[in-house]
Amino acid sequence: MGSDRAPAPEVEGAILAARHHDVEVLLVGREPQLRAELARHGHHGLPIRIVAASEVIGMDEKPVEAVRAKRDSSLRVGVRLVREGSAGGFVSAGNTGAAMAAAILNLHTLSGVDRPALAAVFPTAARTPCLMLDVGANVDCKPVHLEQFAVMGEIYYRTIFGVGRPRVGILSVGEEESKGSELTLEAHRLIKRLPLNFVGNVEGRDLYNGNVDVIVCDGFMGNVALKVSEGLVFTIVSMLRESLKVTYTRKLGALLSRRAFEDFKRRLDYSEYGGAPLLGVKGVCIIGHGSSNAKAIKNAIRVAAETARGGINAIIEEELAATAAQEGRSKE
Amino acid sequence: MGSDRAPAPEVEGAILAARHHDVEVLLVGREPQLRAELARHGHHGLPIRIVAASEVIGMDEKPVEAVRAKRDSSLRVGVRLVREGSAGGFVSAGNTGAAMAAAILNLHTLSGVDRPALAAVFPTAARTPCLMLDVGANVDCKPVHLEQFAVMGEIYYRTIFGVGRPRVGILSVGEEESKGSELTLEAHRLIKRLPLNFVGNVEGRDLYNGNVDVIVCDGFMGNVALKVSEGLVFTIVSMLRESLKVTYTRKLGALLSRRAFEDFKRRLDYSEYGGAPLLGVKGVCIIGHGSSNAKAIKNAIRVAAETARGGINAIIEEELAATAAQEGRSKE
Repeated sequence: MGSDRAPAPEVEGAILAARHHDVEVLLVGREPQLRAELARHGHHGLPIRIVAASEVIGMDEKPVEAVRAKRDSSLRVGVRLVREGSAGGFVSAGNTGAAMAAAILNLHTLSGVDRPALAAVFPTAARTPCLMLDVGANVDCKPVHLEQFAVMGEIYYRTIFGVGRPRVGILSVGEEESKGSELTLEAHRLIKRLPLNFVGNVEGRDLYNGNVDVIVCDGFMGNVALKVSEGLVFTIVSMLRESLKVTYTRKLGALLSRRAFEDFKRRLDYSEYGGAPLLGVKGVCIIGHGSSNAKAIKNAIRVAAETARGGINAIIEEELAATAAQEGRSKE
Repeated sequence: MGSDRAPAPEVEGAILAARHHDVEVLLVGREPQLRAELARHGHHGLPIRIVAASEVIGMDEKPVEAVRAKRDSSLRVGVRLVREGSAGGFVSAGNTGAAMAAAILNLHTLSGVDRPALAAVFPTAARTPCLMLDVGANVDCKPVHLEQFAVMGEIYYRTIFGVGRPRVGILSVGEEESKGSELTLEAHRLIKRLPLNFVGNVEGRDLYNGNVDVIVCDGFMGNVALKVSEGLVFTIVSMLRESLKVTYTRKLGALLSRRAFEDFKRRLDYSEYGGAPLLGVKGVCIIGHGSSNAKAIKNAIRVAAETARGGINAIIEEELAATAAQEGRSKE
């Protein structure tokens, strides 16, 4: 209920998901609105149900405070369905901080995980996406958190993108092992010992060149990388649009190459990948952009279903237990 | 001598600078090569001199080691000219780490500065550039370093871009003062007390939207922001190029809108701003991209001259002394 144009894209996305993927969708929110929106579409016979929630958390509300205060918000009711086992996963395109807070406060963390991480999917020049985590759940991280992010991200990538041995890298300021901050140098040492396809340090440019599949970093860094990217794409697209409008010749050119721009925008479109999974909580939680369209919602639902069916959380707990056993560390 | 196509763009850029700006240029490097390159251009009567240096530091050499070993490298000789007062500033498009190391090891830091910072200039949607520092000189920073970066960046922006009260922000993960890492929260508290036009926390997207003039951050973060941007621009341009070649209609469209793309590329072109100043050393040092063309070199020389003439270093020392006095801190 809390996204920019809710609940229209949510309802349409739910219908698309129920039609094209083998899922049952529970729409959580204000019943009259959801019913009215559903009525605008043909959904006869589709496995879609409404679960009433009377409150909505807005985009500008303070996450933790809002989640605590609004017990009947669509976010809290949705997360509760997951906790009770009535839903296999939860999708939201609302307030990202509130969605994370609702999940972390109510679902608890997986065994072996100290900090859940938000993982974002980036398009690359190589047509295989790049998964970066954490992009904002944890501001100050310790090396052991980055180690856990590496394990969780690798399992997620493997399961969702069907890549046998995804390449895992750590975000740093140079490729040499000796380069980095105190945090990344120690995290490098920890991740190196794991049974992963670890490619070592990667740099900011590797986020988009397809040289690495999973990049781990602290949430501050990941958030900056994500927002710098969003800002740059926005600026580039508006500069180009302006520049294409100056003369008639240019306008004609832009018209003729319109499909090229559509292609291009589709390739840059984060919504193809269906949102960012919050990894490390007991349950499945996929968080989409506030401006998600129906296709993004449909893909987020598909990804949530694949994450649940793939048993990613059980695998994460197993692998972290194995890592802890091997390192002789006491499990938490 | 150490840039990708040295010394051709350097010599041509020097000629352009000597012709169009009121500067005398010393070309530092291997004399026969420089002489041959100069002979290819008309430079009669221009104030250009060659200063011989027999060694070259390559792009892939380890900065500190190379600078220590190659005493007669163009980088070290160039920096020496500045130290001796024979040159007002030094420009290099060679190995960035080595250029920084040569300057930091040989020029020493300004009074009141703990750590010199590399400042990069980014184009924005607003047509006024954004200066971000540090973009790579310091990996692990303390709050007081960010405070000094704010003072240095503000003075540089004021002098070079002629803006009376540049807006200074600190890179964080949310606009609210309560958001950030341990580092940024404390730096926020320190910078807030300075007599600057401080706009508080800014986010990654603000790098490109023109909402802020000077952004301070630690060198790890700045390096990631810079390299993510470079990688994204490269990926976007190649995706667009591919997409425009698929059909004849698109190709024709691209041809007709060619000037729009040229405009667009010019606006994204970092070389317009003439390289990144290393702020905080006793002397002027401007570091350009390894692929700098003649125009970028010319602009870097112009910026070096303006930095020297503007007396930026004296102003930095004065303002830091005033800050230290006000805070009752012992000067270092």
